[in-house]
Amino acid sequence: VRYQLYYWPTIQGRGEFVRLALEDAGADYADVARLPASAGGGVGAMMKILAAKDLRTRPFACPFLLAGRQCIAQAANILQFLGPRLALAPASEAGRLWVHQLQLTIADLVVEVHDTHHPVGSGLYFEDQKPEARRRTRSFLAERVPKFLGYFESLLATGAKPGGWTVAGRFSYIDLSLFQVIAGLRYAFPQAMRRSGRRYRHLAALHDRVADRPRIAGYLASPRRIAFNEDGIFRHYAELDA
Amino acid sequence: VRYQLYYWPTIQGRGEFVRLALEDAGADYADVARLPASAGGGVGAMMKILAAKDLRTRPFACPFLLAGRQCIAQAANILQFLGPRLALAPASEAGRLWVHQLQLTIADLVVEVHDTHHPVGSGLYFEDQKPEARRRTRSFLAERVPKFLGYFESLLATGAKPGGWTVAGRFSYIDLSLFQVIAGLRYAFPQAMRRSGRRYRHLAALHDRVADRPRIAGYLASPRRIAFNEDGIFRHYAELDA
Repeated sequence: VRYQLYYWPTIQGRGEFVRLALEDAGADYADVARLPASAGGGVGAMMKILAAKDLRTRPFACPFLLAGRQCIAQAANILQFLGPRLALAPASEAGRLWVHQLQLTIADLVVEVHDTHHPVGSGLYFEDQKPEARRRTRSFLAERVPKFLGYFESLLATGAKPGGWTVAGRFSYIDLSLFQVIAGLRYAFPQAMRRSGRRYRHLAALHDRVADRPRIAGYLASPRRIAFNEDGIFRHYAELDA
Repeated sequence: VRYQLYYWPTIQGRGEFVRLALEDAGADYADVARLPASAGGGVGAMMKILAAKDLRTRPFACPFLLAGRQCIAQAANILQFLGPRLALAPASEAGRLWVHQLQLTIADLVVEVHDTHHPVGSGLYFEDQKPEARRRTRSFLAERVPKFLGYFESLLATGAKPGGWTVAGRFSYIDLSLFQVIAGLRYAFPQAMRRSGRRYRHLAALHDRVADRPRIAGYLASPRRIAFNEDGIFRHYAELDA
């Protein structure tokens, strides 16, 4: 296979942004940690690379991608690498920097989503930081979600956008990532997202258009799409979605 | 001027990673928000751009850089743009992805540094989240600092590194960023960093070599280098450095 993706096998997490790009492009890839150990897969295979001190570009963490002799980590960086190769990014340097910049903004949002259920430390259980999680989620939903989604909504709403994609004139990986953000927030905070009503209607429309893309629709209906769950980044805890 | 940097005028923050690159390269730049309003500077000038809905690549937040007709945001993305232009990045695509990947790993660390004093929410005062900050800092110092610094230390320690720089064979912006991380952690957590002793000795040596570069030494001694303070990312609170 051409691309070997390494990420936790039982969650969407940060790896999902990469999976969506590979799936939408119909790329030749393996999701290695989800393969059986007998086929060179499993978490063990991933850990071995993360511990390989002789690997010149050893990643700090997953997700990472092996492509030929290259090993590339950081979800946004992997997408930047794949973008031109999968025809999911603009051709110009300026365009690629712009899409990447938007992806890094999504990465910032994803950190804040994770911090809603783990404000005190990712090494502790959610159960050990519930009151703090409630406080953090309150300010996240009241201040941060409107700031982030309001920003992307305004990008989608302004200017002529043929096809309705985020970057003028063409579909790119940022559209897939925004789909994932909306899907994730709806899973984690269904009440809060419902209350926001038509405030993010361009984002909602973008979400639907992405979900309707044939390869994405096929992916979402397949066992390759891991369901959202409470080990991932977008978690649903009824007590936080108030 | 060739480059116009926009960032908060009274803190190092995320903008400092960009300032260090511009300074080390002796680049022709203005730190716009630190100029008087009469010269087109000040925070107002920055806010105006952040609110400019007709700007095609409007940033979500500062820092951002104006270069000719381009507007580029996200510290790591700005460095990726400046790298080849300031001779602070490898020439190959693979090399540039690698340096950027390391910069994104530093960006992750920087978020966690910020969360030590603001675990419950950046919209609240430190005084309103002190017990949570103590808990978060404890796990940050015990688990996260060793993980991040241990990773970079091991990169520096393995393989032949002519000149001792992070990326084999050449000085790059990642060396400047690692200098900043070490300086910041020492400011915020002097006791904890002292206790770590010679555990990160390659990083300590890198810090010193960067500080000795003539342009960086000049910058650090100049009023252009804002002092660390308790509005920035690296903050010193005695009660957290236990």
